[in-house]
Amino acid sequence: MRTSQLFISTKKEAPAEAELLSHKLMLRAGLIKRLGSGLYTWMPLGLRVLRKVESVVRSEMNAAGAQELLMPAVQPAELWQETGRWDVFGPQMLKITDRHERSFCFGPTHEEVITDIARSELRSYKQLPANFYQVQTKFRDEIRPRFGVMRAREFVMKDAYSFHASFESLQQTYDVMYSAYSKVFTRLGLQFRAVAADTGAIGGSGSHEFHVLADAGEDLLAYCPTSDYAANVELAEAFAPAVPRAAATESMRDIDTPKQTACADVAALVGVGVERTVKAIALISAAGDFVLALLRGDHSLNEVKLGKVDGMADFRFATDEEIRSHLACPPGFIGPVGIAANIRVIADLTVAAMSDFICGANKPKFHLSGVNFGRDLPEPNVVADIRNVVSGDVCPDGKGGTLELCRGIEVGHIFQLRTKYSEAMNCVFVTEQNTQQAMEMGCYGIGVSRIVGAAIEQNHDERGIVWPAAMAPFSVAVVAVGYHKSEAVKAAADDLYAQLMAAGVDVLLDDRNERPGSMFADMELIGIPHRVTIGDKGLADGIVEYVARRGGEMQKISLTQAKSFLQGVINN
Amino acid sequence: MRTSQLFISTKKEAPAEAELLSHKLMLRAGLIKRLGSGLYTWMPLGLRVLRKVESVVRSEMNAAGAQELLMPAVQPAELWQETGRWDVFGPQMLKITDRHERSFCFGPTHEEVITDIARSELRSYKQLPANFYQVQTKFRDEIRPRFGVMRAREFVMKDAYSFHASFESLQQTYDVMYSAYSKVFTRLGLQFRAVAADTGAIGGSGSHEFHVLADAGEDLLAYCPTSDYAANVELAEAFAPAVPRAAATESMRDIDTPKQTACADVAALVGVGVERTVKAIALISAAGDFVLALLRGDHSLNEVKLGKVDGMADFRFATDEEIRSHLACPPGFIGPVGIAANIRVIADLTVAAMSDFICGANKPKFHLSGVNFGRDLPEPNVVADIRNVVSGDVCPDGKGGTLELCRGIEVGHIFQLRTKYSEAMNCVFVTEQNTQQAMEMGCYGIGVSRIVGAAIEQNHDERGIVWPAAMAPFSVAVVAVGYHKSEAVKAAADDLYAQLMAAGVDVLLDDRNERPGSMFADMELIGIPHRVTIGDKGLADGIVEYVARRGGEMQKISLTQAKSFLQGVINN
Repeated sequence: MRTSQLFISTKKEAPAEAELLSHKLMLRAGLIKRLGSGLYTWMPLGLRVLRKVESVVRSEMNAAGAQELLMPAVQPAELWQETGRWDVFGPQMLKITDRHERSFCFGPTHEEVITDIARSELRSYKQLPANFYQVQTKFRDEIRPRFGVMRAREFVMKDAYSFHASFESLQQTYDVMYSAYSKVFTRLGLQFRAVAADTGAIGGSGSHEFHVLADAGEDLLAYCPTSDYAANVELAEAFAPAVPRAAATESMRDIDTPKQTACADVAALVGVGVERTVKAIALISAAGDFVLALLRGDHSLNEVKLGKVDGMADFRFATDEEIRSHLACPPGFIGPVGIAANIRVIADLTVAAMSDFICGANKPKFHLSGVNFGRDLPEPNVVADIRNVVSGDVCPDGKGGTLELCRGIEVGHIFQLRTKYSEAMNCVFVTEQNTQQAMEMGCYGIGVSRIVGAAIEQNHDERGIVWPAAMAPFSVAVVAVGYHKSEAVKAAADDLYAQLMAAGVDVLLDDRNERPGSMFADMELIGIPHRVTIGDKGLADGIVEYVARRGGEMQKISLTQAKSFLQGVINN
Repeated sequence: MRTSQLFISTKKEAPAEAELLSHKLMLRAGLIKRLGSGLYTWMPLGLRVLRKVESVVRSEMNAAGAQELLMPAVQPAELWQETGRWDVFGPQMLKITDRHERSFCFGPTHEEVITDIARSELRSYKQLPANFYQVQTKFRDEIRPRFGVMRAREFVMKDAYSFHASFESLQQTYDVMYSAYSKVFTRLGLQFRAVAADTGAIGGSGSHEFHVLADAGEDLLAYCPTSDYAANVELAEAFAPAVPRAAATESMRDIDTPKQTACADVAALVGVGVERTVKAIALISAAGDFVLALLRGDHSLNEVKLGKVDGMADFRFATDEEIRSHLACPPGFIGPVGIAANIRVIADLTVAAMSDFICGANKPKFHLSGVNFGRDLPEPNVVADIRNVVSGDVCPDGKGGTLELCRGIEVGHIFQLRTKYSEAMNCVFVTEQNTQQAMEMGCYGIGVSRIVGAAIEQNHDERGIVWPAAMAPFSVAVVAVGYHKSEAVKAAADDLYAQLMAAGVDVLLDDRNERPGSMFADMELIGIPHRVTIGDKGLADGIVEYVARRGGEMQKISLTQAKSFLQGVINN
């Protein structure tokens, strides 16, 4: 394609509302254009990238034996009422009323629709397993849409759903899809990690997230550099310390902490490490009971893990008033010593192994040091893993490594739904034994449009986007300097362009009548991987200039060999 | 692809609600599945057809210089308020309120959104003309969705929008798009006709519809077999009779018509042709005036034409009560003789040239014969072309041909919008003279999903769908009879399948363990253009059977030549 035929609209500055680098670069490069909050038009250049992602996704889904179909975006409320999700999905679901006052939604996901299809079309074990996917526009009414296409309201998703006669069959397809997802992100040229994940609101058991690694990622991931262990921090298990609790050596005493409420400040005042402190977090269980959770001062609460402790599903944090009413002490000085016997204490594994620790005194402006379980306070009611892992923690896979942390952008998620939807919607099949049984189900999502933003977060420099080869809107930019002034430049550029087009290379000929610097800046901002510059000066010697977008030095190459040179670097 | 890997779900019977043949066949062949009123899932087989249509459309749009982008489906109300269409589009627009109580719609069309993009991205005459298109899911809340994908609520549309510095430039692009549309429908293998059309609610001037010709079409088209004239009957001009009004030869007299209210019945009673009768249609103008329109008894009123008569915009038909109150006569016997002087009479050109005609007497159970203008009643207040043309009418292009009528399904529509939207939304550019001017605009739609239904209406027989080559889900079906029983059949079928796949032929290998008759019936219902049957009997002599879906006789061909034979018939 020629730039004279392509709508290019690059900008020097991004609008102020763009917070994230990928969002800024997509707007500056003219890949997308904002229509409203969380609503973006994919401009011609951006759509080329989106389609390349879609194409890789489709190719791997087909190879995995999934069949493409296309379900409606607008879904009747009745199906969602069958699973009960009409009422519990929450305000992210965009509800719609049609002219006949019937209720619909703009589908945020399609479990109900595909299960409705499966229950009428798949009747026998002979038809199973079956795996269907679509690449489709979805809508989730985010309360605060941001980050451009990374958290848009309307977005393109690949969603697949599989149906099975047995759990074993589900596991087989799950493994195939896991592998297909790995191939998708590998082919797209992205650094990614598959991590064990919580199943969250979709339900079911068994789930992996696929994350593109990027500093700006919203998710914190734990991984082991020496094994294949990786998990979302929400799920990563923290072990009890290898060394058991030491015997008490200090006696308990008050520390005067007039202004110190944070563990780090108390530790600094005393002159010890923060790992000698214990913080108490006041909670209210769903049953309304006041609960104290104990964590080491430098650790953070993992709400997912705590929620799995008996009685703690749907807990909430206590208000300041509730804290004062149960402990007669303001927040910042509370602790587990001397509290009413009916207050349940849940200690993290690490805390349970501590002795001679420092904690709040339950008196304003005082902490306690030399505190020991069994002597100064009862043993905790519950001891459990309720903290987030930290860098250096023992890897829970038992292979002896230690964990590292990194940030990721979730771009894929696969679930073993089991029979959650099939049971709710009576999606049954006739078994070989002629009995009826609910189908096992899996579901598999890829955030197609989000991948574009995530790829940029991972691949950019100060000049703009640095596309991985498979996602680049064009492979090669031929910049013709003086196309409208020099017959020689025009002839050479047109010829190389024709050669590359004939060879099936995705080439953009920049034939605009612009300053060279402006053309280079555009091609770099847009992120085309390979650039050839043709100008009068070099042409006199039959020479053109080549530069790779990713950190390459300029190379002089012969015009006659330019095509084969480019094919070489593209295939490399 | 193999049928063992493809979800096929054919049915003997279509659901009762499917009225139209294409709808029945799409459901029976398992191309689509109903989710709700006007909502259909494109099943894997149907999606293959839809994608083939999309691909041809994209290819011709790109060749015409249009650039693909993708706008959001969900559109903010504010843009529609700028053009005033938020309030006038009517209940077909699906309005949505988001969690922040802001108003949106599920876009039924995208003039407002693209004009918003153009006004901020296209600033100078140097950037014009520009032509953008998308292939996208749209929603129109039809009051009575029916005919499957032909009048669905959610559907796939290709919509293009062009922007110009001058009307001449618009006309050039309009001509290019007209030609591109012709190429699309030609490549799809459809019999179609481009007809001059009314611009309707979208507004602007200059418009053509593209119709797939089919008996079940909702639109009536007039065309001239001896010239290139074609128009929607809404628009086709009817000329005044070549012979002027003859002098009166009869005197006016009452005819006793006790039960005859229809012109044809009155004519039969009298023993003359119905073309000797005149019917009066009672109307109320927007100003509230009672009006009589006069048409020849065998002609029908063209409401579009009548609406263009001075004072008759937004007319309505009079109620029986209004007729009785103005004429003191029940409907069925009304006529233009002896009515109050303030009742306006609009006569069709044909009626104005009649003499000695028969019409209602304005007395219950009586008509009049021998009626003549100027003698028995005043000349009409207005004489105009207000009827639909009929077969045999003189072609209005002046080339001497006569019109024929046919039915069509509208699958494309192109408009010269001119400055309707650009003026309402201040979409201006800086001219070469450094002045500001509203852009000229064109818009160009293709009902991508509707084409699939229209193609079936035009191409089917008693056994099912007969796809044109470019739309067929597969080009060739290889039916292996006894694939699971005969090693020889399996080997031959697998080998031919591999040969065809390697040659890039879109082939479906039917490797199911079904009765041959059932496999043939499925392949015929699905409509695959070419079928090869491999069975033990022929294989012994190295023979396989070929049959073309479209009316072909069975041919025996050699297995070794099957690939080249098939390539030959496909390319033919």
